[in-house]
Amino acid sequence: MIVHHFYSGGKDSSLAAWILTRMGYDVELVTVNFGILDSWKYARETAERLGFEHRVLYLPTEILEKAAEMAVKDGHPNNAIQFIHEKALEALASLPEVERISDGTRRDDRVPFLDLPKARSLEDRFNVAYIRPLLGLGYKTIRELTEKLFMVEIRESEELEKSDYEVELRYFLRKEGIDPLTIFPKQHYQSRVMGWRE
Amino acid sequence: MIVHHFYSGGKDSSLAAWILTRMGYDVELVTVNFGILDSWKYARETAERLGFEHRVLYLPTEILEKAAEMAVKDGHPNNAIQFIHEKALEALASLPEVERISDGTRRDDRVPFLDLPKARSLEDRFNVAYIRPLLGLGYKTIRELTEKLFMVEIRESEELEKSDYEVELRYFLRKEGIDPLTIFPKQHYQSRVMGWRE
Repeated sequence: MIVHHFYSGGKDSSLAAWILTRMGYDVELVTVNFGILDSWKYARETAERLGFEHRVLYLPTEILEKAAEMAVKDGHPNNAIQFIHEKALEALASLPEVERISDGTRRDDRVPFLDLPKARSLEDRFNVAYIRPLLGLGYKTIRELTEKLFMVEIRESEELEKSDYEVELRYFLRKEGIDPLTIFPKQHYQSRVMGWRE
Repeated sequence: MIVHHFYSGGKDSSLAAWILTRMGYDVELVTVNFGILDSWKYARETAERLGFEHRVLYLPTEILEKAAEMAVKDGHPNNAIQFIHEKALEALASLPEVERISDGTRRDDRVPFLDLPKARSLEDRFNVAYIRPLLGLGYKTIRELTEKLFMVEIRESEELEKSDYEVELRYFLRKEGIDPLTIFPKQHYQSRVMGWRE
């Protein structure tokens, strides 16, 4: 039973991957990339440290361009991140070998997040199961499990070597002459998992 | 790390208990009872077959009376079941030794179900973590896991030896001269776990 699980190298997607393994699934990690930066390599490195299979899913640059337009128009990144995640889920779910897809979205997340009708629509349109191991967990539970399991590095978004959508979105905005700090929150700490705790 | 997990002996609450165990928690199963029938004994029996600790949480009969009134007034049991479950969560969360509570509610359930503000309010008011292992799983995933794990008996609600809220609610209505079949759906198949598959 293989699950293709979206992976950024952060603690949420790492915890979700661990739970899937504990549930008996064979987990293959998938990192989204637009071919602009090789930022997927940080997720690959963490995946190897944790002992997971890992692949890169390349999405068309047009999706990143459209997301950047949305972020500039809105003045914040929420709709852009949501848009990229929905496109990524659809791209992964449409691959012929994929029967189960998963991500690390949480109960308390605002974006990216699929509400019930969208989650069901994704499953029905692509005939896949969509599994979100963290959806029923609050921040206390996620904190106690990640602290038990992982060595985590926490830095501000701008500094961290990460593999999530934000990295290429920030780079793309900067290339277009737009300061990402006018769009993303100033103090935005993010985490990267460095390995198992024991 | 002990979790107190609501348990009816059905496949959803059994699957949720198994996932909690796989996540590294010590699971203590809790079955609600109003002291009217000894229907908790079916959950106890299944809990023993699966190797879990089990306790009965007695709730005041007034809660069942009020739920019965709601069911009669509405002509369907949804609000009554929701009401009992919220009272049960609060009663369990308020016990001094309880730090984490859990149940088998699913993504696709309508009742009982706590929306995000209610879930957060429960956690904040009683300083507990509320864990719902099945919330991020769709019916396909739940089916594939329960088929792999459990021997399950499926019968109509009226026949099954079960331990959920419905059993005492139906009995109480009948005692009050009300036919439960005027309130509960006619064909309502429910499951009881009989043991591990292997």
